[in-house]
Amino acid sequence: MRLRIRPVESSFYDMFSEAAAHLVDGAALLAQMLDDSSDKKAIAEKMREAEHEADETTHKIVRRVNSTFITPFDREDIYRLAGSLDDVMDFMEECVDLLGLYELEALPPEFAPQVEVLQRATQLTAEAMPRLRTMKDLEEYWIEINRLENQGDRSYRRIVADLFSGSYKSLEVLKLKDVADSLEHAIDALESVANTVEQIAVKES
Amino acid sequence: MRLRIRPVESSFYDMFSEAAAHLVDGAALLAQMLDDSSDKKAIAEKMREAEHEADETTHKIVRRVNSTFITPFDREDIYRLAGSLDDVMDFMEECVDLLGLYELEALPPEFAPQVEVLQRATQLTAEAMPRLRTMKDLEEYWIEINRLENQGDRSYRRIVADLFSGSYKSLEVLKLKDVADSLEHAIDALESVANTVEQIAVKES
Amino acid sequence: MRLRIRPVESSFYDMFSEAAAHLVDGAALLAQMLDDSSDKKAIAEKMREAEHEADETTHKIVRRVNSTFITPFDREDIYRLAGSLDDVMDFMEECVDLLGLYELEALPPEFAPQVEVLQRATQLTAEAMPRLRTMKDLEEYWIEINRLENQGDRSYRRIVADLFSGSYKSLEVLKLKDVADSLEHAIDALESVANTVEQIAVKES
Repeated sequence: MRLRIRPVESSFYDMFSEAAAHLVDGAALLAQMLDDSSDKKAIAEKMREAEHEADETTHKIVRRVNSTFITPFDREDIYRLAGSLDDVMDFMEECVDLLGLYELEALPPEFAPQVEVLQRATQLTAEAMPRLRTMKDLEEYWIEINRLENQGDRSYRRIVADLFSGSYKSLEVLKLKDVADSLEHAIDALESVANTVEQIAVKES
Repeated sequence: MRLRIRPVESSFYDMFSEAAAHLVDGAALLAQMLDDSSDKKAIAEKMREAEHEADETTHKIVRRVNSTFITPFDREDIYRLAGSLDDVMDFMEECVDLLGLYELEALPPEFAPQVEVLQRATQLTAEAMPRLRTMKDLEEYWIEINRLENQGDRSYRRIVADLFSGSYKSLEVLKLKDVADSLEHAIDALESVANTVEQIAVKES
Repeated sequence: MRLRIRPVESSFYDMFSEAAAHLVDGAALLAQMLDDSSDKKAIAEKMREAEHEADETTHKIVRRVNSTFITPFDREDIYRLAGSLDDVMDFMEECVDLLGLYELEALPPEFAPQVEVLQRATQLTAEAMPRLRTMKDLEEYWIEINRLENQGDRSYRRIVADLFSGSYKSLEVLKLKDVADSLEHAIDALESVANTVEQIAVKES
């Protein structure tokens, strides 16, 4: 119905789905970083490519906003949504970049719970984006993302408490805390995506 | 006057007052954490309860926004205000949680100035919320919060400089800096509350 | 044309230009902090003055928004723009303040690339502010700021990797990372300024 009246902007939904699909890829690459036997350099290279493609999608959305007269929801909300989706990828890429920069071999197994939250939350986000078209069945998505963010928060604090327990060298602590921070920020950015979706849904309802 | 025209949404003011009252409770619990002789476990438990109740209030506000046709101010501002109030509690709860996780006995006395700022600022916030109804006498509130935030900032920097002075062990520095950060973030969130109130007041004037 | 219709608010452009001019001054002071032979105390004093003047400009803008009936663009965007410009100065002043608090002599030469980004980005911001009047030729500004922010990000990560390489003492690492963070945050705030300008331009186009 909405689409019949304003056909021109339908592809915004496709572009948001595309942005979320890059995030699913990014989270899968992070999961491979947990595997000791994987080729870390190749994964880092793929992550850089995924981040580059996500950037392209973001710019495509921004250019479309600038050149479209009628948008499916407020321009500012489109910007915010595109920006938060882009942030998620930036933080995931930062995580992998830090592993290289700090000469850490792989993601230590302690980080698996954070990565699992990212995989689950990016999957849910990718499934939710096409539903922006009808604005139906979105509430379960943002409630579940908020629950996952809480779970990620608890994982994060447990990791940091462990890092501060005295069993790591001082520099190791600093490096691994930065890595944990990047994953935590990626999860927070997924919550921002969900919050923006909630606000859009409220306005449209 | 405003109330006579749009009676239905009057309880938003009550809910914001309720949210701010939780923050006053939270800051009082933090002050008890400074007292060596207090029962830290019992305080931490009360803080978790306060945080839980604050969450309930936040969700109540969000549900009300979603189900109310006319709101006393812009939906987005209501979200932002509820979100910032919620952030304050989250950071205060984080502070207490970190003390437990890092096996620190109590809040060291150096943190008293930050806690005092939080007590004063939550008090002022709780007094200001009912005034949203008339939008009168709010300017002094946000000016004073901004002053307190500056004062908190100076306290924070002094604490960190002290932590970095060489009299603490490396892990101790990291743990206590995280604690100071959580208090600093709670104060910043109170400033966000005040900034949002200022923006609402400007729009309504 | 716009000015003939709404003459009263023309000075917003002047105030934004004034705010950006303070930032150019601040970045120049940071550059002097890199010079071993400069008088650090005198520079720190000048930085405090610059920050104070920037605060005055911010308050002038906010007061004007509050007392003006018609504003050249949305009140919220004026707030956001003034707020982000103010943040840039706060972070630059924080950097200099931390050098004093942590008893660091000068900004180590490793920080020169970050300072260069700040000098270039504040310059571009100062040149862009007067163009808000006509909303012309702003795109090249925000594209270049985004490029500079990426460049600053890479410099920042390189600095941190170096700090974590094992050649610094543990406390030195923590102090210098805080300093690098403040510069990184100043650059991020300049990106927020550019993003806000982009959003204003899109709305007006």
